[in-house]
Amino acid sequence: MEEVQPIIWDGTTLYLLDQRLLPGKETYLPCRSAHDVAESIKNMVVRGAPAIGIAAAFGMVLAARNLLSSMTDQQDSSALPPYFLEKLREAAILLKETRPTAVNLAWAVGRIMEKAEKLGAETPDKVQKELEAEAKKLYAEDIEINKRIGRWGAELIQDGSTVLTHCNAGALATAGYGTALGVIRSAFFQGKKIRVFADETRPFLQGSRLTVWELKKEKIPVTLIVDSAAGYYMSKKRIHCVVVGADRVAANGDTANKIGTYSLAVLAKENNIPFYVAVPFSTFDFSIDSGSDIIVEERDSGEVTHLNNALLTVPGISVGNPAFDITPASLISAFITEYGVLHAPNRKKIEEFFSQKKSITLEK
Amino acid sequence: MEEVQPIIWDGTTLYLLDQRLLPGKETYLPCRSAHDVAESIKNMVVRGAPAIGIAAAFGMVLAARNLLSSMTDQQDSSALPPYFLEKLREAAILLKETRPTAVNLAWAVGRIMEKAEKLGAETPDKVQKELEAEAKKLYAEDIEINKRIGRWGAELIQDGSTVLTHCNAGALATAGYGTALGVIRSAFFQGKKIRVFADETRPFLQGSRLTVWELKKEKIPVTLIVDSAAGYYMSKKRIHCVVVGADRVAANGDTANKIGTYSLAVLAKENNIPFYVAVPFSTFDFSIDSGSDIIVEERDSGEVTHLNNALLTVPGISVGNPAFDITPASLISAFITEYGVLHAPNRKKIEEFFSQKKSITLEK
Repeated sequence: MEEVQPIIWDGTTLYLLDQRLLPGKETYLPCRSAHDVAESIKNMVVRGAPAIGIAAAFGMVLAARNLLSSMTDQQDSSALPPYFLEKLREAAILLKETRPTAVNLAWAVGRIMEKAEKLGAETPDKVQKELEAEAKKLYAEDIEINKRIGRWGAELIQDGSTVLTHCNAGALATAGYGTALGVIRSAFFQGKKIRVFADETRPFLQGSRLTVWELKKEKIPVTLIVDSAAGYYMSKKRIHCVVVGADRVAANGDTANKIGTYSLAVLAKENNIPFYVAVPFSTFDFSIDSGSDIIVEERDSGEVTHLNNALLTVPGISVGNPAFDITPASLISAFITEYGVLHAPNRKKIEEFFSQKKSITLEK
Repeated sequence: MEEVQPIIWDGTTLYLLDQRLLPGKETYLPCRSAHDVAESIKNMVVRGAPAIGIAAAFGMVLAARNLLSSMTDQQDSSALPPYFLEKLREAAILLKETRPTAVNLAWAVGRIMEKAEKLGAETPDKVQKELEAEAKKLYAEDIEINKRIGRWGAELIQDGSTVLTHCNAGALATAGYGTALGVIRSAFFQGKKIRVFADETRPFLQGSRLTVWELKKEKIPVTLIVDSAAGYYMSKKRIHCVVVGADRVAANGDTANKIGTYSLAVLAKENNIPFYVAVPFSTFDFSIDSGSDIIVEERDSGEVTHLNNALLTVPGISVGNPAFDITPASLISAFITEYGVLHAPNRKKIEEFFSQKKSITLEK
C-alpha cells in the first residue's frame, strides 16, 4: 500500500517506478513531457488500467505546461495562447493511442481535456494549476476508490481460504492499494488467514515479478504457480475463489482483462468456484455494447520469444501475443466496485446498479 | 521424423539428445551406465513418456553389461553370476524411481527385467545380447506404433484446420515420429493444409523449445502462443481441435499429461472443440482405477522461479510446480491409439476396445 508507489508527481516531473525491472531493481524513470509518458505506457514501464490512466493524466499536465511555457515566451502571458487546446488535443490523442484496450486511459485523459476546455478564458498560470489539481484529484480518488473496493470485496473472502489472482491488479496497477489485491489486502488486514495463489502471468510475468513482490512486502502468504497450473489446483479444491482486475467492461458486463483471465473464469465455473472481478466504475465503458466490440491489443512477438534478451525458441517463428481476452459476463460471479458488490451481473443489473448507487452516499 | 532422433544406441553407449539445450544447441549426452540414464531422465535431458521408457530400457541393458563385465572377471564366464538378477532389479528400481507419473517407464523397464528373468539359465553373453535385442525391439516398436497412431489420427484432422497442441508429444518425446505430433505429421504428409498452435508450455517450455523446433524442421506451419492464450483463440474459433499426448491413462480413461492439459480440455468443452489424446496402449495402466490414484510429480521450484539461471521473481518465494494434471475421461473426445480411435471413452469401452483390438490384425 503506502510502501508501493508506482507513480510520484513532485510538481514538475512525473516519476514512474520502472515495472520492467522489478523485482530486481526499484528505479524511477523521470517523465518531463507527454511524449515521455506515452513511451513509458507503450513500453510497460507503467501498466495496469488505472495506473496508466493516472500516468496519462499527468502526461496531459506536462503537455500543458510545456505548451504554455513555449507559447508564452512569444506573447502576452496573461492570456491563453491560440492553438493551446488544439495542441493539447494532439497530446491527448498521442497518450490515448499508446494502448487500445484499457478504458481508464481514455477516461482519465478525457477528464483533463474537458477541464482544459472549460478553462478557456483563464490565465495560463491558472489553467496549469487547475489541470495539475485535477490530475492530483484523480490520483487521490483512485486510492480512495480502491480502498472502498477492498472493503466491499473483503466480505466475500472467507477466513482460511485460498484466493487465486492473475496478472497484477495491485498497488502497482493503480495509484496505490490495488483493485484485486486491494480486496486481498483488506481481507488480510481484517485478520483473515488467507493464502494467495499468484499466476506467473506470461509473457510479461506480472504475477511472478509484481504481485509476488507486492504481497511479500505486505507479508501476505503467497504461492507462485505457472498459469496452466491454476486449473489443477482448482480441481484439487485448493483454490476457493478467484479475484482479478479488469481493463474494460462492456455495457453487458463482458470483461477485458489480461490474457488468461477467460480461461480462469471457465475453469472456475467447471469447478464451482466463485469468480470475482474487482473494478472501479471508471472501467465500465457504456459505449461498448458487448465484449466482441472490445479491441484486443496484439503486442510484440518478442515478449513471447525472448526473456531477458535471450531467445527461448527457434528464430523467426510466427507468434500470437494477444495482451487481453474477454470473459463473458455469464462467467462472472460478481463485480466488486466502489459502490458495492454486484452479483451475477448482466446488462440490466449493471445499469440499475450504477444508476442507484451513484446517487446515494458511499457506504464504505 | 527421421531427422529428429532423441535416442541413439550404438551398441555400447546410449546417446541422448540433450533436450534442455534445444533449440539453441543439438548436443548428445553419452550414457554408459544405468546411473547415467537415471540422472538424464531426472534432469530432463530426455523427457516424454515413451522416450523415457526406451531410454530406461537401454539403461537396463547398460546395467546388465556393467554387472556382467565386473562379475565375470571374478569367475566362470560361461554361467550367469549369482546376484545378477538381484543387482539388475536394483537398477530397475533406480530407473523407475526417476519420474513417478509416466507409466511407460515402469512398463519398459519391466519388459527388460522380465526378459532377464526368463534367461536365468543362459550364458552371460547370450543374456546381454538378448536384453539388447529386446530394448532395440522396444525402440523399433515405438516408432511403428506412433506411425499407426498418426495414420488413425490423421483421419480426425480436417483439411484447412488449426490444431492446438501442448507440451511436446513429438519425435523428441518418443523413439521418433511422436504421438500427438505424429497425428499432425501424418495429416500434413497426406497433403492436408493445417496450422499448428503450440502452447509454449511453462515452466520447461517444451512447446517453444521443442515442438516449434520439430515442426519447423518439417515445414509444418506453426504459431507459438503463451499457455493462457489458448482459451482466447478457442473462443475466437481460431482453433478447430486439440491433440495432446499422455503420461498415464487410468482404467476409467482419466489421463495424466503435462500440466495445463486439463485446462485445455475444459476450455475445449466450453467451446465445443474436439479434444483428442494420442496415446499408445502401453500408456494405459489398468492397475490404476481412476485419475485420483495417479501420483502427480512435484518438480523443483527453480523451474518456475528461474530461467537460464536468472531469477524471475522475489528470492525464497513459495512455489507450486506440479508437472502433470489429470484430465477426466468425460472431457476427452477420443483416444487415438495404434489400434484405432476410441470415441467418448469410459471404463467399459476402453476394456472392450483393447480386448477386441489386440486380438485382431493391425489394420493400419
